[in-house]
Amino acid sequence: MVYLVQMDVHIPETWNEKKLVDYLARERECSQKWQSSGKWKYLWRVAGRYSNISVFQVESPEELHQIVSSLPLFPYMEIKVTSICKHPNALSEKVV
Amino acid sequence: MVYLVQMDVHIPETWNEKKLVDYLARERECSQKWQSSGKWKYLWRVAGRYSNISVFQVESPEELHQIVSSLPLFPYMEIKVTSICKHPNALSEKVV
Amino acid sequence: MVYLVQMDVHIPETWNEKKLVDYLARERECSQKWQSSGKWKYLWRVAGRYSNISVFQVESPEELHQIVSSLPLFPYMEIKVTSICKHPNALSEKVV
Amino acid sequence: MVYLVQMDVHIPETWNEKKLVDYLARERECSQKWQSSGKWKYLWRVAGRYSNISVFQVESPEELHQIVSSLPLFPYMEIKVTSICKHPNALSEKVV
Amino acid sequence: MVYLVQMDVHIPETWNEKKLVDYLARERECSQKWQSSGKWKYLWRVAGRYSNISVFQVESPEELHQIVSSLPLFPYMEIKVTSICKHPNALSEKVV
Amino acid sequence: MVYLVQMDVHIPETWNEKKLVDYLARERECSQKWQSSGKWKYLWRVAGRYSNISVFQVESPEELHQIVSSLPLFPYMEIKVTSICKHPNALSEKVV
Amino acid sequence: MVYLVQMDVHIPETWNEKKLVDYLARERECSQKWQSSGKWKYLWRVAGRYSNISVFQVESPEELHQIVSSLPLFPYMEIKVTSICKHPNALSEKVV
Amino acid sequence: MVYLVQMDVHIPETWNEKKLVDYLARERECSQKWQSSGKWKYLWRVAGRYSNISVFQVESPEELHQIVSSLPLFPYMEIKVTSICKHPNALSEKVV
Amino acid sequence: MVYLVQMDVHIPETWNEKKLVDYLARERECSQKWQSSGKWKYLWRVAGRYSNISVFQVESPEELHQIVSSLPLFPYMEIKVTSICKHPNALSEKVV
Amino acid sequence: MVYLVQMDVHIPETWNEKKLVDYLARERECSQKWQSSGKWKYLWRVAGRYSNISVFQVESPEELHQIVSSLPLFPYMEIKVTSICKHPNALSEKVV
Repeated sequence: MVYLVQMDVHIPETWNEKKLVDYLARERECSQKWQSSGKWKYLWRVAGRYSNISVFQVESPEELHQIVSSLPLFPYMEIKVTSICKHPNALSEKVV
Repeated sequence: MVYLVQMDVHIPETWNEKKLVDYLARERECSQKWQSSGKWKYLWRVAGRYSNISVFQVESPEELHQIVSSLPLFPYMEIKVTSICKHPNALSEKVV
Repeated sequence: MVYLVQMDVHIPETWNEKKLVDYLARERECSQKWQSSGKWKYLWRVAGRYSNISVFQVESPEELHQIVSSLPLFPYMEIKVTSICKHPNALSEKVV
Repeated sequence: MVYLVQMDVHIPETWNEKKLVDYLARERECSQKWQSSGKWKYLWRVAGRYSNISVFQVESPEELHQIVSSLPLFPYMEIKVTSICKHPNALSEKVV
Repeated sequence: MVYLVQMDVHIPETWNEKKLVDYLARERECSQKWQSSGKWKYLWRVAGRYSNISVFQVESPEELHQIVSSLPLFPYMEIKVTSICKHPNALSEKVV
Repeated sequence: MVYLVQMDVHIPETWNEKKLVDYLARERECSQKWQSSGKWKYLWRVAGRYSNISVFQVESPEELHQIVSSLPLFPYMEIKVTSICKHPNALSEKVV
Repeated sequence: MVYLVQMDVHIPETWNEKKLVDYLARERECSQKWQSSGKWKYLWRVAGRYSNISVFQVESPEELHQIVSSLPLFPYMEIKVTSICKHPNALSEKVV
Repeated sequence: MVYLVQMDVHIPETWNEKKLVDYLARERECSQKWQSSGKWKYLWRVAGRYSNISVFQVESPEELHQIVSSLPLFPYMEIKVTSICKHPNALSEKVV
Repeated sequence: MVYLVQMDVHIPETWNEKKLVDYLARERECSQKWQSSGKWKYLWRVAGRYSNISVFQVESPEELHQIVSSLPLFPYMEIKVTSICKHPNALSEKVV
Repeated sequence: MVYLVQMDVHIPETWNEKKLVDYLARERECSQKWQSSGKWKYLWRVAGRYSNISVFQVESPEELHQIVSSLPLFPYMEIKVTSICKHPNALSEKVV
């Protein structure tokens, strides 16, 4: 099953540079681990905003939650989840 | 350049069955023409809602508008457009 | 997989009594067919509003869409879909 | 009487790890006490978000408030309450 | 149990004067019947708007729905329902 | 004149227990003083939320502001004010 | 007592020119009658929008409702009402 | 003085093709007359939506209203007006 | 030209009493200086809320910005600006 | 390609005067560098608000993101991005 997820990042203003750099490095590592697994299909930047839009292909809603909540910045993101599926007018047989 | 577009369909309540069927057939034909062209990369159904979420890869914002506004149901959709691009943490070289 | 779905009904003002009664009868029949199938687990009325909140247990997002879009009033409802799953603090093993 | 309650959690950014762990342990204990009592019927995770959706069966609105406000994270949650009841099209005699 | 209910009225633009007058007369009769029963405790006009705010004291959410949905204008109102109860700082023993 | 006022409380996360207890005691005292005066007619808890809905009968908007802004938690509340009055369908002669 | 009222006009699309001209003439007459009475203190156009913002000085919320609801376009306007009063920093003794 | 104005067009569903074509022709003529006058500085299409964003340089808010309300589609547009001016960091001496 | 401006004040929770008193004194002095100049025509309190609604008559949008941004609390206010002008139905020749 | 971007600035309340002055100087320098490059075509102040509206002409969404995210205040701004293009009724051949 496929989900479209938008994540808007809100870095706490009290973080110093060192803490921020550390978080961003771990965030990168974590997101790339899931991309390598084949479950995080797309990771897009929203142009001009501190946000990303992503496409996940997972076994269950539990697995989606496991992935998204494993991100170090998870508690600092406003997240919108949309369950998507095959459209009857889509030419491609595969959803993603 | 790549756009994510959400379209919520609002069929006018005054349309009869015949008019609706005609519109849906032309909508299908039009969307599949653009999918075949390679510019309409993904067409997804939002599960449980009369909406789709799509990914377009186009030459310019003018071309995006040409495609979306060519849909017969264009005047009857509430449309949200998001300009997306490569994310620095994305593993893939290609945006879509 | 389990979905929570809220449906707010907006009956077109041009419908006469006969058309409304016909739609409501078919809506009832359709929703009860899906309840009997075991996929539509709960159907609740929102107290004081022309809305329902429902819980579906389905095989896929495609199946959720098939069920919800088969309702005669589907084009006349504003629908909100939430993908839910097991909570780590939940005592029960089953989601629903 | 039955309520559907959505709780979105916002952990204060000033909490350290120890304080957070302590709160989460007490939150778990508290929510499981109410689940054991039979009043907190369902506790669901919203997939991909730091939120839950719950179903309560209580004697009165006062009791609902007593339960929800006893949660240690109560002051740190954005809460939406919906009063629900039997739907005329529901097959089951029981609301929940 | 006590509910606060706000109802915003949207008269369909296709109604003629006769139909409107008839609906308003029946609306009045219906609301006064429920006021006389002691269940519709307060009916207030929102100053300057085609809206009312009301307080109901009922046996159950089902009874609230029965009352509100019996109003002839029910399908033409946008309705917001809030479940209220005794406040710990309230001096009065009775909720309403 | 009569006002319906909803107050949503947002306690600053930096307050310690002692400060909170002090504020809540003074809030209680202040609200009960105004209830005793007969101007704060109803004080209701919104079930499941850190909010109250109140009814005030005052001489002027200036007096309403004097009362609400005298509450110790006034700077920490999100407040919505609705001016209400007699409804033509109301049976009772008195507004509140 | 003084109210600030914003009215956004939504002319029904089914009205013909004659009906519209008739309504606008009666709207003008009605609003000028209340301006002459001294109760409708200011009537401003929102630049670029089919809206007005007005200031009323009335005896009671009932009188405000009487004035606003006497406008022929009342059922076709979205109305927002704000109760305003003397500000402690205002130099003028009079509110309006 | 300079205004940024966003106009979202909502064509009534009851219009036939002939009426729509007539309105669009007159809309074009009207907007080009004001562009030629030098007061309508920019007219942009929002990519993928039935909306435009425009920049006007006018003598007064009254003149802005005169221009925008002269558009044949004025009653069928949702309009948002923003008053803009020189930014202290802008290099150019002229606003537009 | 005339503007209607709503300012909602959000005092930072970290300010101590001394800092708050100092800011409020300077805010008062600043707002009264502009009222004396004749450019800040009205300053109203929104009854029951930490907000004001004001009317400014200025030479340009630049001057409006100069006045509003000179307020010590400017960075701590949520501000909504509406450009208003003479309404064709207004009896008075002057806007304010 | 052309973008309209609105940026609302929210300065953290914990910043002291020195830090703020430093940020504002670097923000000015950065924005003027991009204006000199010809890619940041317009920078407007929203009258009365701590916001700007800007027009960018860039090669790609990636370049837009590079520019906007290079601003020192980028993490402290709420940003709205709109992709705009030539309107069929525009007289000018150039978009900006």
